[in-house]
Amino acid sequence: MSTTTEAVRNGVDTAQLFGTLDALKDDPSLATFQFRARNRWIGGAHNRTTIRDFYAAKQEDTSRETAFVLDAGEPTILLGSDTGPNPAEYLLHALAACLTTSLVYVAAARGVRLTEVESTLEGDMDVRGALGLSDEYRNGFERVRVSFRVKGDAPEEKLRQILTRAQQRSAVFDMVTNGIPVTVDVATP
Amino acid sequence: MSTTTEAVRNGVDTAQLFGTLDALKDDPSLATFQFRARNRWIGGAHNRTTIRDFYAAKQEDTSRETAFVLDAGEPTILLGSDTGPNPAEYLLHALAACLTTSLVYVAAARGVRLTEVESTLEGDMDVRGALGLSDEYRNGFERVRVSFRVKGDAPEEKLRQILTRAQQRSAVFDMVTNGIPVTVDVATP
Repeated sequence: MSTTTEAVRNGVDTAQLFGTLDALKDDPSLATFQFRARNRWIGGAHNRTTIRDFYAAKQEDTSRETAFVLDAGEPTILLGSDTGPNPAEYLLHALAACLTTSLVYVAAARGVRLTEVESTLEGDMDVRGALGLSDEYRNGFERVRVSFRVKGDAPEEKLRQILTRAQQRSAVFDMVTNGIPVTVDVATP
Repeated sequence: MSTTTEAVRNGVDTAQLFGTLDALKDDPSLATFQFRARNRWIGGAHNRTTIRDFYAAKQEDTSRETAFVLDAGEPTILLGSDTGPNPAEYLLHALAACLTTSLVYVAAARGVRLTEVESTLEGDMDVRGALGLSDEYRNGFERVRVSFRVKGDAPEEKLRQILTRAQQRSAVFDMVTNGIPVTVDVATP
């Protein structure tokens, strides 16, 4: 491979990556983003989210030709009919996806080619919290364990450093471990 | 409608709901659940999570005939090719879905029939955090706004109380607002 083809590493266009970082340094107002989701209840534990538009780099993004549609549900034991993963499972997916993408981008920026990235996540929950049976148990997961398996063309120590950096910069890892302020309003026509 | 058909309200089998609560009161060890997700990197910002098995009520659940498959991605401006919603958008969906299902279950338990539940979520982010350009900005959303529209056969005040209770018992709302302990391990063969 010639050095010119090195621009795309791990499927990430590193020229675009460094160009984006430079653009944000030149004009920090480009860094203001807003992501959105619209959800509609269908019945029982079945509800559906539509995701398409977002705000980025001082304008409304129009690059997505179609919306993403996500169905949520619950298994039978939680009174649903498995119309989709349940919300807590979606949160595990969000965490896995964000850590993985952060890892891939950090590796690309640091010149490391990855060949395999897999992760398994487990979240422990006592459902007495969410079901309102006891205040001794929180509603959500008491803890989450993430186990990565990472292969690439770098020594183990470097792969570990890249994962540590990915953790330090993952948006969802930050939100899930530190929490975020959420306001809930309701209109009841 | 006769009183016997009232057992299913908002698509929730309230007889099963109250039966579940009674069973958990009788044997709290049934309340130990574990949810799981397995993620595999495909290339660039594209990775895929598989969700199927979980532990509940003292056994491995085998009720799901097939696995749920979720693809994550990033839009072009964040160096992806829109192979799926991005991880932060999935987090918004998890939050919307959990608040909605909690609302529907609480309403079912309290004898309120809902006719419409919709929500819109917005998350504000300065991407200088996640991109490692500045420590002044967090990686995740600075704040999230959730706007519900709820219709049902109860006065506005009661619908508001139900939404408040749903917030107090939502697993994902708890996790996203309060944070959870997450451990990350890595094997680098």
